[in-house]
Amino acid sequence: MKFTDKLSAAWATNTSLLCVGLDPDVSRLPAHVRDQPDAIVRFCKGIIDATADLACAFKPQIAYFAALGAEAQLEAICAYLRERYPHIPLILDAKRGDIGATAHQYAREAYERYGADAVTINPYMGFDSVEPYLAWSDHGAIILCRTSNPGGSDLQFLQVDGKPLYQHVASLVADKWNRHGQCSLVVGATFPEELAQVRALVGDMPLLVPGVGAQGGDIEATVRSGKTAQGTGMMINSSRAILYAPPLAGEDYAAAARRVALETRDAINLYR
Amino acid sequence: MKFTDKLSAAWATNTSLLCVGLDPDVSRLPAHVRDQPDAIVRFCKGIIDATADLACAFKPQIAYFAALGAEAQLEAICAYLRERYPHIPLILDAKRGDIGATAHQYAREAYERYGADAVTINPYMGFDSVEPYLAWSDHGAIILCRTSNPGGSDLQFLQVDGKPLYQHVASLVADKWNRHGQCSLVVGATFPEELAQVRALVGDMPLLVPGVGAQGGDIEATVRSGKTAQGTGMMINSSRAILYAPPLAGEDYAAAARRVALETRDAINLYR
Repeated sequence: MKFTDKLSAAWATNTSLLCVGLDPDVSRLPAHVRDQPDAIVRFCKGIIDATADLACAFKPQIAYFAALGAEAQLEAICAYLRERYPHIPLILDAKRGDIGATAHQYAREAYERYGADAVTINPYMGFDSVEPYLAWSDHGAIILCRTSNPGGSDLQFLQVDGKPLYQHVASLVADKWNRHGQCSLVVGATFPEELAQVRALVGDMPLLVPGVGAQGGDIEATVRSGKTAQGTGMMINSSRAILYAPPLAGEDYAAAARRVALETRDAINLYR
Repeated sequence: MKFTDKLSAAWATNTSLLCVGLDPDVSRLPAHVRDQPDAIVRFCKGIIDATADLACAFKPQIAYFAALGAEAQLEAICAYLRERYPHIPLILDAKRGDIGATAHQYAREAYERYGADAVTINPYMGFDSVEPYLAWSDHGAIILCRTSNPGGSDLQFLQVDGKPLYQHVASLVADKWNRHGQCSLVVGATFPEELAQVRALVGDMPLLVPGVGAQGGDIEATVRSGKTAQGTGMMINSSRAILYAPPLAGEDYAAAARRVALETRDAINLYR
């Protein structure tokens, strides 16, 4: 099934625009999990099982695995997601960006090795650094446009023909690169007015929106700015606020994660 | 030792501006190597041993390992380089680009796990996506500026205040990001006049220059455009033209690689 179709189905099935980011920082895992072998896999499975009926996508961040030499654990988590929750899109957050032959290798990594439905990609090297990913016709390419970090403005806000660079990226992707409906964009929640400008440029293209939760983005403004006429079109990501939610009395980490994921999903749904 | 000092020493010791790229595509390995266990490690060690007195740096491309789940082989190759040729800088070509906490994980991957002296980084997300790498004060951050692929122009040639974006990146890095002399830039050999413009903007900053060899860049124009007043300042990369040099009668792949590396090094030195 095509990535966008799978995403649309997950939006409907779980009544959710919430993407749960899996950024397992070992130093922040609960002590009783951290000390076990396979701690990362165990922790992530706990988060996944607790939130799978609340999420429209899961998004593991490969850097947390690569720093530890834990690729086998990432493979195990991806396999678990595909087998147990095949209806929930799996997005590999890798932000790859390289030329043709090398991009092809990165596409194999994301789509074949990890079985991701979609992967995040950096646009700085241009279309021939994105095109190799599109050869996998059922898979999605999620291209950085306007990122939620403070330094995002260093390049993305430079003015090109009177418009900031990120708007040129949005138009390039929507008008030229997205030939077969495989592309999405990353647009941070920290700039709702910019999210609205991107939405106006790209029609119903799905947007991956980080910056809600730990990064402080405002949910109401984010949803109102980024949704489509159908009240969908977004994967609003929260990672740390869910993964490391402080447990209330009687909760373990998974129950705390579920509580925050439910609150976040429902807060999003208020404004759709 | 600082990356730039190690690089300067290697320029002098080997009278070389040649960077040997290690992009081991299994389908292109010699049949007698390909069929062996540990084929990638064996092949790369052969290339390294054959060219270590001709190179100013080695640059493994991580995508070729990641696609295969061959991180252990990359670790083995990097360990071999560090132990056998500790005076030759090891550059991990990863083109990472992500925000603070995640960038920190990628820096750990490059500098601690693989022991690289420097890593390539994408500037699209701005300074706070580069800054975490600079916390490792002896290591280098090699930032994409003007890339050698045709699509490189899609973004990098957009005009900002009458100058192409890549020149803004060059100035940002030279004037603001390079606070402690750790930064270098990637500038493709396919555009010598642009290489000269970058050189004029960045003083003696080292430039990693891909695009010679299989990608067709002209060596004379590249060296004349990119060198510093001292006749150094460049890591001119060749990967496929060396790795997959067709052997002449009596040569194995390593001897063929050595021959092409020697020719390339000497061709570069003609114009320094």
